Amino acid sequence: MIKVGIAGATGYTGSELIRILLTHPEAEITAVTSERAAGKNVEDIHPQFAGLKKIKLVSIDHLNTDSIDVLFLALPHRVSMGFVARHYPISCPVIDLSGDFRLPDPDVYECWYGEKHKKPELLSESAFGLPELFRDSIKKARLIANPGCYPTSAILPLAPLVKEKLVETDSIVIDAKSGATGAGASAKENTHYPNVADNFSTYGLKTHRHTPEIEISVERMCGIRPTVQFTPHLLPVNRGILTNIYSTAIVEGLNEQKLKEIYNDYYGNEPFIRLRNKPPQLREIRGSNFCDIFVTYDERTNRVITVSAIDNLVKGAAGQAVQNMNLVLGLDETTGLLTPPVCP
Amino acid sequence: MIKVGIAGATGYTGSELIRILLTHPEAEITAVTSERAAGKNVEDIHPQFAGLKKIKLVSIDHLNTDSIDVLFLALPHRVSMGFVARHYPISCPVIDLSGDFRLPDPDVYECWYGEKHKKPELLSESAFGLPELFRDSIKKARLIANPGCYPTSAILPLAPLVKEKLVETDSIVIDAKSGATGAGASAKENTHYPNVADNFSTYGLKTHRHTPEIEISVERMCGIRPTVQFTPHLLPVNRGILTNIYSTAIVEGLNEQKLKEIYNDYYGNEPFIRLRNKPPQLREIRGSNFCDIFVTYDERTNRVITVSAIDNLVKGAAGQAVQNMNLVLGLDETTGLLTPPVCP
Amino acid sequence: MIKVGIAGATGYTGSELIRILLTHPEAEITAVTSERAAGKNVEDIHPQFAGLKKIKLVSIDHLNTDSIDVLFLALPHRVSMGFVARHYPISCPVIDLSGDFRLPDPDVYECWYGEKHKKPELLSESAFGLPELFRDSIKKARLIANPGCYPTSAILPLAPLVKEKLVETDSIVIDAKSGATGAGASAKENTHYPNVADNFSTYGLKTHRHTPEIEISVERMCGIRPTVQFTPHLLPVNRGILTNIYSTAIVEGLNEQKLKEIYNDYYGNEPFIRLRNKPPQLREIRGSNFCDIFVTYDERTNRVITVSAIDNLVKGAAGQAVQNMNLVLGLDETTGLLTPPVCP
Amino acid sequence: MIKVGIAGATGYTGSELIRILLTHPEAEITAVTSERAAGKNVEDIHPQFAGLKKIKLVSIDHLNTDSIDVLFLALPHRVSMGFVARHYPISCPVIDLSGDFRLPDPDVYECWYGEKHKKPELLSESAFGLPELFRDSIKKARLIANPGCYPTSAILPLAPLVKEKLVETDSIVIDAKSGATGAGASAKENTHYPNVADNFSTYGLKTHRHTPEIEISVERMCGIRPTVQFTPHLLPVNRGILTNIYSTAIVEGLNEQKLKEIYNDYYGNEPFIRLRNKPPQLREIRGSNFCDIFVTYDERTNRVITVSAIDNLVKGAAGQAVQNMNLVLGLDETTGLLTPPVCP
Repeated sequence: MIKVGIAGATGYTGSELIRILLTHPEAEITAVTSERAAGKNVEDIHPQFAGLKKIKLVSIDHLNTDSIDVLFLALPHRVSMGFVARHYPISCPVIDLSGDFRLPDPDVYECWYGEKHKKPELLSESAFGLPELFRDSIKKARLIANPGCYPTSAILPLAPLVKEKLVETDSIVIDAKSGATGAGASAKENTHYPNVADNFSTYGLKTHRHTPEIEISVERMCGIRPTVQFTPHLLPVNRGILTNIYSTAIVEGLNEQKLKEIYNDYYGNEPFIRLRNKPPQLREIRGSNFCDIFVTYDERTNRVITVSAIDNLVKGAAGQAVQNMNLVLGLDETTGLLTPPVCP
Repeated sequence: MIKVGIAGATGYTGSELIRILLTHPEAEITAVTSERAAGKNVEDIHPQFAGLKKIKLVSIDHLNTDSIDVLFLALPHRVSMGFVARHYPISCPVIDLSGDFRLPDPDVYECWYGEKHKKPELLSESAFGLPELFRDSIKKARLIANPGCYPTSAILPLAPLVKEKLVETDSIVIDAKSGATGAGASAKENTHYPNVADNFSTYGLKTHRHTPEIEISVERMCGIRPTVQFTPHLLPVNRGILTNIYSTAIVEGLNEQKLKEIYNDYYGNEPFIRLRNKPPQLREIRGSNFCDIFVTYDERTNRVITVSAIDNLVKGAAGQAVQNMNLVLGLDETTGLLTPPVCP
Repeated sequence: MIKVGIAGATGYTGSELIRILLTHPEAEITAVTSERAAGKNVEDIHPQFAGLKKIKLVSIDHLNTDSIDVLFLALPHRVSMGFVARHYPISCPVIDLSGDFRLPDPDVYECWYGEKHKKPELLSESAFGLPELFRDSIKKARLIANPGCYPTSAILPLAPLVKEKLVETDSIVIDAKSGATGAGASAKENTHYPNVADNFSTYGLKTHRHTPEIEISVERMCGIRPTVQFTPHLLPVNRGILTNIYSTAIVEGLNEQKLKEIYNDYYGNEPFIRLRNKPPQLREIRGSNFCDIFVTYDERTNRVITVSAIDNLVKGAAGQAVQNMNLVLGLDETTGLLTPPVCP
Repeated sequence: MIKVGIAGATGYTGSELIRILLTHPEAEITAVTSERAAGKNVEDIHPQFAGLKKIKLVSIDHLNTDSIDVLFLALPHRVSMGFVARHYPISCPVIDLSGDFRLPDPDVYECWYGEKHKKPELLSESAFGLPELFRDSIKKARLIANPGCYPTSAILPLAPLVKEKLVETDSIVIDAKSGATGAGASAKENTHYPNVADNFSTYGLKTHRHTPEIEISVERMCGIRPTVQFTPHLLPVNRGILTNIYSTAIVEGLNEQKLKEIYNDYYGNEPFIRLRNKPPQLREIRGSNFCDIFVTYDERTNRVITVSAIDNLVKGAAGQAVQNMNLVLGLDETTGLLTPPVCP
């Protein structure tokens, strides 16, 4: 059995890693850290896990990376790169779920995150953990930057369009809607129940940090950097991201059928991408590691439209992280992850 | 026009008072206080009120009670009695929406609220602001203790049963469910969106402060003190309380028809109580000052069952407070309050 | 008092007209029709209205238009034009809330609605009931086509951009999200609770009937016909539409400040349009007749972005219809409509 | 691998059986029936299952029970007993998820279900599929009546109290709240989204069919038949039942600690019952086969109070059915069922 360590248990990415790994047939959680709850058991802070495996929480200072085979960092931005900076090199592969190692250029990081990067020399070395596009580099990496939830939902449908030069790279509008778990597990005014329920709102208009992550990751993959208009929204649901992408076609004779063939070339054999004949809905992917993608062409407007859906905590975070773990440790990529969505 | 002052604008009872009073044909809001936002306008903290009357927020220290005709205290428990203690006697009638003046006995207050009352001599003097049962004392009062939301939903259906000696007074089980605005406008862990949405939970089992308020208010009204089992719950809705009351009959030959006649004697002419032929639903009273009551008898179990529904922010707080204002100032009791529910 | 007739009481537009008109100070509902519930009272099918005015439901065949001053048609598409075709000319102004008279060209109607229009000669004669842009023609009209909910939320923010030639008319992407009441009051599979709750989905991609209504109405107003990409979505909320519009700027030196000035010229004096400094949220307009608009410019992408919010049943249907009634009957346009939003 | 047949795939119990069995390590779904969708694949009617195992739907007339090892009936009431009546004896064990075989007495069935039972001789022979209380008879049964969702949530906490004679058997009040999936997958007026969202309501007051199921099952287990007051409610959530049970103590010196010890004797070794130190919440069991139980004693009122939580589609239906399958086929009872809840 693979021995797994998780740094940071109180947030949603931490608890979702625990949920997924508890039924992983080849992995065993052997160390979980929490500063607030060290000394307690996981089920004391997450009662949903009562009756399953008892796991003691320890302080991150007592985490012994020599005794584990892989380490997930489910820590806040900043804290994550601080940990890496203090402990690097680390004896096992590290999968970081924060945003700290996703942008290859420290200046870009500083510009969008508002502070200096603490370990800039690792930025170019880390792999961007989107297996469908960067599988080879993930397999060899020591540090994997698990993608953001919005970027996962946007880059996958966008990549074929940009790489195949089907659309104008400055015509791309990404209108994305996320459930409230995307905002984290701490109570804040904007996620107070009466401020979200029976409500809907945009946020981060023009300025969201996932904008450069989308643009730069597409460029990393195909050498072409698009300029995207990215608008996130807060949905009154717990989980899930639905992302629409609109872009203007630049090739003649495009139609839905041709687009489907192209997407099939890219993703037809991907176990976690489901190319759909109708626009997907959040309920159809809830709790699962699937990314559902629908693509079509509007003749009237000459636009390609994609609709994609992921569970922000699974394919958008913990599930993708376990997919990366499987890759980096040489397991079958789908191990422990082909669980059906919980619908409704 | 009646000049109205509101102390405390940031909470839900404050904003709901503003919402109701903005369309009251005989009242005008002339002073609203907020410590956090003094100097700003109401619409700066409550953008829903943009485009309506501009109202400046002032510190409570700048509130001049001589220039207003009635004062609502929409302050937290403790703060409210502190204000009253500092300023008493006050030149205009005061309607307090906190729990500070609802229990007539300072020892009972201390027992359930965990601290000494700061103005105990006013407890016996204040009127309990449930107009349907205490109308006469409200009209003459200088200080009106606006009832709690749960008590309003429980006392109204309970009063006829206890007063008419129809049920065993120690058989009463009150199972009540409230929307999340009942927990206040500040972000807390238990009202974090993902902790409420798609969820349901009890709280305050055996120990909720509204227990003595229900028991003592019924006793105040009819001299008989019931012992009630009261259990509140947090519903994934914004507004509304649905309350079931189960009690064992002690008279022979009871049936639904007879119960309806008794309730009709009590409430048939009350403008805000609607005696219903089916159990009411929250949607049917949302945003309105109605208390809907259904009563029936289960022959199989010899129990009387009532189901009642109110909007916790209206009949359970701000609407009832305005009803009390109308009474104490000699207006028609329904002025500004007969607005239809917003459904769905 | 103005005597009001409402044809069609069971749907949401019908019940919302009743809700609004019950507190209108100069209007009185004197006739309401329902085929399914003729002979019953309004409160039998809408228990939320119990305890307010008793109104008998009659069959539409017993509706006497001579005894009323204005008639609202809250009927389904097709049924509405059938009624008009049978009864035209009608002795009082008619405000139709269906889609039957919104498109001026019968061929366009047939193309998007899939059937021949039954009264094509009235199409050019009817006024498009969006007061902020077509006030003069509404005042003189005998037949007013009340706009669709999505078009209301899109045309108002779009009009200044197109008329002032600020944006490319074929660059316009409208990504709109609506609450479930927009799908009507009848139970259908797509609005079954577990299919909507904790879910989110697009529908009508590329083909929604509101597309031509938006394009043609903008053209009617300013002579320029844009081609818009319009995508509606089903939100897990009851009420409200939030609409984002993205368009590429074609003038130099645009910025948020300039855009605000332009919008202020158009709408600064409109009582129901609130120009906002932050993107509006659904909760801030719930239950009210306001249309909130935020406009900004993204220098990085050279796009103008607007975010608008309305309550689909009020400004998107019944509230706007009453606004039109006020206009056509010579009342102050805001009469009975300046009620604050119900928030939260 | 065990070969599993499922009759009835379109409803929620059918799709939930598929969800659970797709990851069951020792079972394989080999036949699924649907009259409406025969000839299609499961993923055509349940797109959430795309990308997993392809399963063809057949008409129930083409179901060959000789080729399967166990048959689940996920059919509506009536249809289920009709199928059994036509095909009995069946070559493999049958687990019926409808209500048709839960009541041992055909007269009681007729009284609460309103029609004659079609196979009354099987009623006494069938096992009541609540493993924690009827494990031995389940193991030997050919026909297992899977319990109702509400009864599961009520019988488990109630059984120790009645059997140990701790409470008055006619003092029991069961106030239960269920998510909307409990009402089935077909669109109906009472489950139309705007009729459930932001709403809460009772139904079936005094008359719900689960009342006799609770009373009789407790009697089956311990020989004492309680009379219960059972009130179900419709919650605005998809999944989950929270059930409060209030009953008056008849033994001296009861307290929470003693009650916990008694419950621990009953359920301390049960893998799917979690005895909790705080009242459970729906989110903590969502998607899992756990039944969480909290028990306490209120000295002030001399009542025992229990709060229990299950997922109505899992422990209340499909999960419990698979637990019964494991038992009747001699597998470890927990096989395929110890998956953690999906929270939030």
